[in-house]
Amino acid sequence: MNKIPVAILGATGLVGQRFITLLANHPWFEIAELAASDNSVGKKYGAAAKWQLPFEIPARLAQMSVLPCDPHAVQAPLVFSALPTDIAGALEVEFAKRGAIVSSNASPHRMGADVPLVIPEVNPDHLALACVQRKKFNSKGFILCNGNCTTIHLVLALAPLHQRFGLKKALVTSMQALSGAGYPGVASLDIIDNVVPYIGGEEDKVEQEPRKFLGKLNGETIELSDIRISAHCNRVATRDGHMETVSVEFETKPQLEDVIAAFDEFRGLPQELALPLAPARPTVYRREPDRPQLKLDRDAEKGMATIIGRLRECAVLDYKFVLLGHNTLRGAAGATVLNAELLYAQGELG
Amino acid sequence: MNKIPVAILGATGLVGQRFITLLANHPWFEIAELAASDNSVGKKYGAAAKWQLPFEIPARLAQMSVLPCDPHAVQAPLVFSALPTDIAGALEVEFAKRGAIVSSNASPHRMGADVPLVIPEVNPDHLALACVQRKKFNSKGFILCNGNCTTIHLVLALAPLHQRFGLKKALVTSMQALSGAGYPGVASLDIIDNVVPYIGGEEDKVEQEPRKFLGKLNGETIELSDIRISAHCNRVATRDGHMETVSVEFETKPQLEDVIAAFDEFRGLPQELALPLAPARPTVYRREPDRPQLKLDRDAEKGMATIIGRLRECAVLDYKFVLLGHNTLRGAAGATVLNAELLYAQGELG
Amino acid sequence: MNKIPVAILGATGLVGQRFITLLANHPWFEIAELAASDNSVGKKYGAAAKWQLPFEIPARLAQMSVLPCDPHAVQAPLVFSALPTDIAGALEVEFAKRGAIVSSNASPHRMGADVPLVIPEVNPDHLALACVQRKKFNSKGFILCNGNCTTIHLVLALAPLHQRFGLKKALVTSMQALSGAGYPGVASLDIIDNVVPYIGGEEDKVEQEPRKFLGKLNGETIELSDIRISAHCNRVATRDGHMETVSVEFETKPQLEDVIAAFDEFRGLPQELALPLAPARPTVYRREPDRPQLKLDRDAEKGMATIIGRLRECAVLDYKFVLLGHNTLRGAAGATVLNAELLYAQGELG
Amino acid sequence: MNKIPVAILGATGLVGQRFITLLANHPWFEIAELAASDNSVGKKYGAAAKWQLPFEIPARLAQMSVLPCDPHAVQAPLVFSALPTDIAGALEVEFAKRGAIVSSNASPHRMGADVPLVIPEVNPDHLALACVQRKKFNSKGFILCNGNCTTIHLVLALAPLHQRFGLKKALVTSMQALSGAGYPGVASLDIIDNVVPYIGGEEDKVEQEPRKFLGKLNGETIELSDIRISAHCNRVATRDGHMETVSVEFETKPQLEDVIAAFDEFRGLPQELALPLAPARPTVYRREPDRPQLKLDRDAEKGMATIIGRLRECAVLDYKFVLLGHNTLRGAAGATVLNAELLYAQGELG
Repeated sequence: MNKIPVAILGATGLVGQRFITLLANHPWFEIAELAASDNSVGKKYGAAAKWQLPFEIPARLAQMSVLPCDPHAVQAPLVFSALPTDIAGALEVEFAKRGAIVSSNASPHRMGADVPLVIPEVNPDHLALACVQRKKFNSKGFILCNGNCTTIHLVLALAPLHQRFGLKKALVTSMQALSGAGYPGVASLDIIDNVVPYIGGEEDKVEQEPRKFLGKLNGETIELSDIRISAHCNRVATRDGHMETVSVEFETKPQLEDVIAAFDEFRGLPQELALPLAPARPTVYRREPDRPQLKLDRDAEKGMATIIGRLRECAVLDYKFVLLGHNTLRGAAGATVLNAELLYAQGELG
Repeated sequence: MNKIPVAILGATGLVGQRFITLLANHPWFEIAELAASDNSVGKKYGAAAKWQLPFEIPARLAQMSVLPCDPHAVQAPLVFSALPTDIAGALEVEFAKRGAIVSSNASPHRMGADVPLVIPEVNPDHLALACVQRKKFNSKGFILCNGNCTTIHLVLALAPLHQRFGLKKALVTSMQALSGAGYPGVASLDIIDNVVPYIGGEEDKVEQEPRKFLGKLNGETIELSDIRISAHCNRVATRDGHMETVSVEFETKPQLEDVIAAFDEFRGLPQELALPLAPARPTVYRREPDRPQLKLDRDAEKGMATIIGRLRECAVLDYKFVLLGHNTLRGAAGATVLNAELLYAQGELG
Repeated sequence: MNKIPVAILGATGLVGQRFITLLANHPWFEIAELAASDNSVGKKYGAAAKWQLPFEIPARLAQMSVLPCDPHAVQAPLVFSALPTDIAGALEVEFAKRGAIVSSNASPHRMGADVPLVIPEVNPDHLALACVQRKKFNSKGFILCNGNCTTIHLVLALAPLHQRFGLKKALVTSMQALSGAGYPGVASLDIIDNVVPYIGGEEDKVEQEPRKFLGKLNGETIELSDIRISAHCNRVATRDGHMETVSVEFETKPQLEDVIAAFDEFRGLPQELALPLAPARPTVYRREPDRPQLKLDRDAEKGMATIIGRLRECAVLDYKFVLLGHNTLRGAAGATVLNAELLYAQGELG
Repeated sequence: MNKIPVAILGATGLVGQRFITLLANHPWFEIAELAASDNSVGKKYGAAAKWQLPFEIPARLAQMSVLPCDPHAVQAPLVFSALPTDIAGALEVEFAKRGAIVSSNASPHRMGADVPLVIPEVNPDHLALACVQRKKFNSKGFILCNGNCTTIHLVLALAPLHQRFGLKKALVTSMQALSGAGYPGVASLDIIDNVVPYIGGEEDKVEQEPRKFLGKLNGETIELSDIRISAHCNRVATRDGHMETVSVEFETKPQLEDVIAAFDEFRGLPQELALPLAPARPTVYRREPDRPQLKLDRDAEKGMATIIGRLRECAVLDYKFVLLGHNTLRGAAGATVLNAELLYAQGELG
């Protein structure tokens, strides 16, 4: 089988490095081009990237010359974007116009009216928005987004509850890992023996993006869900894995065991299609009193699941629980790749 | 002036060590006796305590022989208790019966119907319950409790809002420091690059104790407040200082600036009486976007204040904010000492 | 092929858990029995072990009943020992007397005159001591030891230099990970934002054991090497991976590139025999200026190699360098298993 | 008494902030000017500095306008320099030429032939070099340097031994705190659960500077000591406090108790002159088996002492021990201020 050649934009950063490891031996995709910022262009990837992961860069990729993030320099029909927020908006449009399908981890287009913001287990039907973009761009290209790292795991936990029982409100406090801020990211003096109760822009993403994920496709638009979400976002001294405490209010309060069953039984299209990166269980409920924990659970299901625990009554809303998810796998690069796998499996990549 | 001789029960532990440092040069109290568990009895305090604080044990105290935690061996009329939960209940009663006033940091008696559970800025009138105990014990002794470390800072932040506007609900997530679990407490392998989303018994304390602090003295009983509180308690890798995110719902929603004014202007009896350990401001509101932080704020006001920040609208309840407090000062030993200072200033210590 | 049934003594501890993961799918050995201390006996292993590793306990083993560490209760002909120091000495002898071959990570017998203390790449010939024990015990059983976690990696780095050039002295400072102290081990308050410059008994092991590893088999005894080693051992706030700075003095000072070549080219019997757990390269020299680092290198070669870097002139001795090794894999459980694999490959297991 | 007006160059950085706190209430000096890099110039200091210390910026200083680091803009006769390495060299000369006395924490001039590199307890006579500079600059200005943070504490421990017994060699491994790298400095992802065995340029400073501190003033030059020092420098996950393991070789090996006595009894000119920032004991020897530790000892003697422990025989050199010192107090800003206090007490400030 001929693999589809793909490019990685922002390949030297932390999410870019995760793309490398997820795509290096992918059954459907083959890394053909690596692109990064000007000070990396022309260098070998192995020299340009300050590598952060506990395995070697694959030799073939280490030798690849870094290209500029320019739609004329980068030819691949499928592009994974880990571009920085400030340039992603304009650049991703250019790529789509020249015909590339852009699976993006960047935030600027997530809430765009004609941009599918997709978690394959939750709202794969939103991919239908692609045709709106294709018309607008007069091209076969379009932009497909995944959510914010904290949002994705929140939505994976909320979706089974919303589908089965109807959700009205969720109040979430996050304890987010350092890799979520990229590299070099958070200064060590800001986090050793400290907690920072503020992450710029994060709370708004966590409050707004779920309304689109849980929204309804209506012709060529998404009707946002009217679920009300409030977020407190904090940075703590952990490397990988976002922990979130969540309280929820239902349309009609279900039984506690029925809520657990909803977590246990949740499956979606990626499981049905057996997408390469799909977790066997997208939501894993653990019954131990002190789980999930980062040291034990963040890598479960290849880092592609949301691990949930401690479901119990909430004195203010209906129930409360805690969830944990790997922020650079299912919360970033893994989400972007899974979205592309969904496109492939549905024949969208030609 | 003759100082009042005091004893410390559980003197070798982490809270006991804080008592030492707070009382070593106290203007009203003088440490006369140190008591601890059997394996310390008879040793010099300096040898018995595995000292954890960044200053030397005062020489006089280092040389003091450790006594058993026995009301017959310990003579002081005022006793500070940092006894372990499993023995504090019965022992503190014995001390009260023999005539000692027990200012306790232990949890067993906190919710007792005739036990004042007091934050001097919030509910000093609850001290009136002492006479109920005195009758029961037929003694001048009684037990006076402070709250749980997470609860105290929560209540210090809620009280000015409740007094001024009326509060109905609060939803809180804590990120608690390691010193809250005592020494040796949490294993290092359980917390480096980890978060533990569970602290045994903690959530119940945080949900129940505020109802008593904010309750009304009615003759010889406290009518519990009907405020509804829900807590998610987490352990993170910090040494001192509990961070809490809080969302609140009011009887009638006030203006945001009025809420800040309530924090800014909050004062109580300790400030009026100029108690030695009283903070100038029991609640400090900071307007920077990323405060409070442990590294900057936990020692503000000698560790005796609750530092608050980031007040903003909440999409689920009315407002949300973050608070930080030192857990072994105002959250434990400092609270116990301040309660005793209140007794002294009101002439209860004879 | 019939696998050899093996038992794990001290199966619930941190090293015991590593044995589980290394042996769960081993090509030659099959876990038949799990033994631990009295408070675990009779429980299912899954309930008895406070599991610390980021993957699930294999289901078959989680269901196995824990046996007492008693040579009459445990039948397997090959026994892996992670027994605590205070009981390992006597118990391991009992196991050897009843005919078991004991591959031990415990320290009491390491310096025993008739006990082989082996790193398979360094001194596999020392296995000849087994026959001395077999005579003494009048049994086919014997005890085989691996070294201390810090020692093993030090010796792996020193051996290629000693073999090729002759070494006279080594001065080493270790920065040791928390897992080296077991679980619960080091209290979190002792290590967050701290360094502890003392590990009880450790320096003596690091100074003495290499003299045996690098010693010469002479008939039925080992002549200890007269290499002089001085160690400073420290505990730092890392989970896994011991870092060591080393300065060495040679018989005759070689060229720097020749020293690097010795590291690069070092191979031994495990590589020749292709033992299942053998690293392709037991010593890996990295030329980057800031390597090795735990986050990047501790899991290289399945955690079975010693990673070395920064070789340069030393103003006091001849050369200096830094090394890193995984302390619970090649530094403990991995060493014990590799020793057993060597026995198997040499036909000693029957 | 009229205080001497002083300026701080590089006032917004981490060392600059320490200058602020050490000088805010100084009995002899008064902060008159604060200077920093272009992007701070013209701002209020409180807005320009990203404050890192656990107490408020003094209100008077928070309101001060930041000046450029220009000898024409800054008028004070005494200047404290925390300038970055790349600009300190040229700028400090300009300040000296215009007549300012520059007490500098920067490294470029430390090894300069006519620059006194001084620890007041160790080599106060080296101040005599000032007159060489004054002649060269034809000005009353000159540059006075303190050493590198790791070096200062090493030299404070070596000096009493060298003075009393004569030292030939020292082999040191450092475990350095994050504040030593400034702010933002080390990325959190580079140090959580990691050790970095490399700090650019550090080892050379630790090996060379002691030769000057321990050298002899001979007329207008310093004869470097021929002590041989070898350093391994590492970064670990601590906020403040450098730990160093040290092995030493003497001219003639003294008795162990005599070495301890040398540490215990060491005093110098700052103690004799009772300089405001002088520690009562510049070297503190602790006899506990596991001291010094950062959490207990780094703030001893106001952070101005070197804390030593664990003196014992070394199998390679004569003795070994461990030392700890606060890196931004005695290791940086405190050293710079103490040097200026020495000048003042000796009448050099007019």
